[in-house]
Amino acid sequence: MKDDRKSALYLAITEAVMEEIKANQIEVVQEESLLRVPVSISARHVHLEKVHADILFGKEYEFQKHRDISQPGQYACVEQVTIVGPKSSIERVRIVAPLRRQTQVEVSRTDAIKLGIQPPVRHSGDVAGSAPITIIGPKGKIHLKEGCIIADRHIHMSPADANTFGVANHQKVQVEVDGEKAGVMGNVTIRVSERYALDMHIDTDDANAFAIKGTEYLTLIK
Amino acid sequence: MKDDRKSALYLAITEAVMEEIKANQIEVVQEESLLRVPVSISARHVHLEKVHADILFGKEYEFQKHRDISQPGQYACVEQVTIVGPKSSIERVRIVAPLRRQTQVEVSRTDAIKLGIQPPVRHSGDVAGSAPITIIGPKGKIHLKEGCIIADRHIHMSPADANTFGVANHQKVQVEVDGEKAGVMGNVTIRVSERYALDMHIDTDDANAFAIKGTEYLTLIK
Repeated sequence: MKDDRKSALYLAITEAVMEEIKANQIEVVQEESLLRVPVSISARHVHLEKVHADILFGKEYEFQKHRDISQPGQYACVEQVTIVGPKSSIERVRIVAPLRRQTQVEVSRTDAIKLGIQPPVRHSGDVAGSAPITIIGPKGKIHLKEGCIIADRHIHMSPADANTFGVANHQKVQVEVDGEKAGVMGNVTIRVSERYALDMHIDTDDANAFAIKGTEYLTLIK
Repeated sequence: MKDDRKSALYLAITEAVMEEIKANQIEVVQEESLLRVPVSISARHVHLEKVHADILFGKEYEFQKHRDISQPGQYACVEQVTIVGPKSSIERVRIVAPLRRQTQVEVSRTDAIKLGIQPPVRHSGDVAGSAPITIIGPKGKIHLKEGCIIADRHIHMSPADANTFGVANHQKVQVEVDGEKAGVMGNVTIRVSERYALDMHIDTDDANAFAIKGTEYLTLIK
């Protein structure tokens, strides 16, 4: 083959390959940006219903904001309680406001072993038949026959986010984590509501097992 | 087609299909049994070198066996120490015998956060530049400038096991976990020695994040 013909052929091949690479790169970048989800770490905390707030903190007590959390209108309070199991207790557990329909204590499995209880892994709000626990506040004490859960791994998102991600409410997905404690978290529940901001919630056990600091973006796998 | 010829043909097809199913079933069963690994949970513990054992427990102290652990010749001792970091301390941390060339403290990330230290994720024995920690025993106290690590996820196996699994010493593999906290543990190091019994070792953070009790068989993925 003559040199100029060879060059023309090489050029044509090179251009075709470059086009291909460019097309693929754009696709890859788009896909990645679509499937990345910010993550927040939920430490053990307590949601209170009105009657229990009255007992633990006094009638019509007004809780003070410590800091906002990732979901609009929700905040961790300055106020803390002690939670007590048959084996031991854990002090300085924050209240998360506003008040809810039903009191709920969320702990990690590490906490549960320390307390000597066996809470089920549940969605927030699904406390029927969950573990018993005692809560001690500055003004009083309550014993819950049920109400302590290990929160499931879940991703909050708006309907618009769900549409963008191509997932549905209650769908189970997997989430991939990079780094020295890399891996995949399975059984992650999608939770869709107009009230939700895009954020994955994991407990401190998942955070520590996967060496997650809470500032990362993780990759959703359907 | 006459009925007897039809029957003969059906019989031949059925037999062929059955043979195929049988062959595949046997293969599937063998593959599963090959890739299953028992798992043990390592709680925080301390390996001591002679000079440190002398300081913490007195000269020529003889450690008593509390219980055997999964690796031949190694055992958790009756004796316990307190480990101290800048933020807090953890009592009743078991010594694992026999004595080693170099003192090493193994904690989970949950422990590390409580203690206020930042140990690296390392293979056992690789303590250069790891986190400082103080150990208090019944007879004395030592401060290590380095020696505290978070042990990496690893699988002990014999050369024969490595051959059966088709993996090599130091190879990184993934391990799949089923159940309500299902997922995949990445960066799992294969450790091959004639002295090793087949067993995966994970810390309490991994155990609690994946809801592993320590009696399961997990699935190795290459």
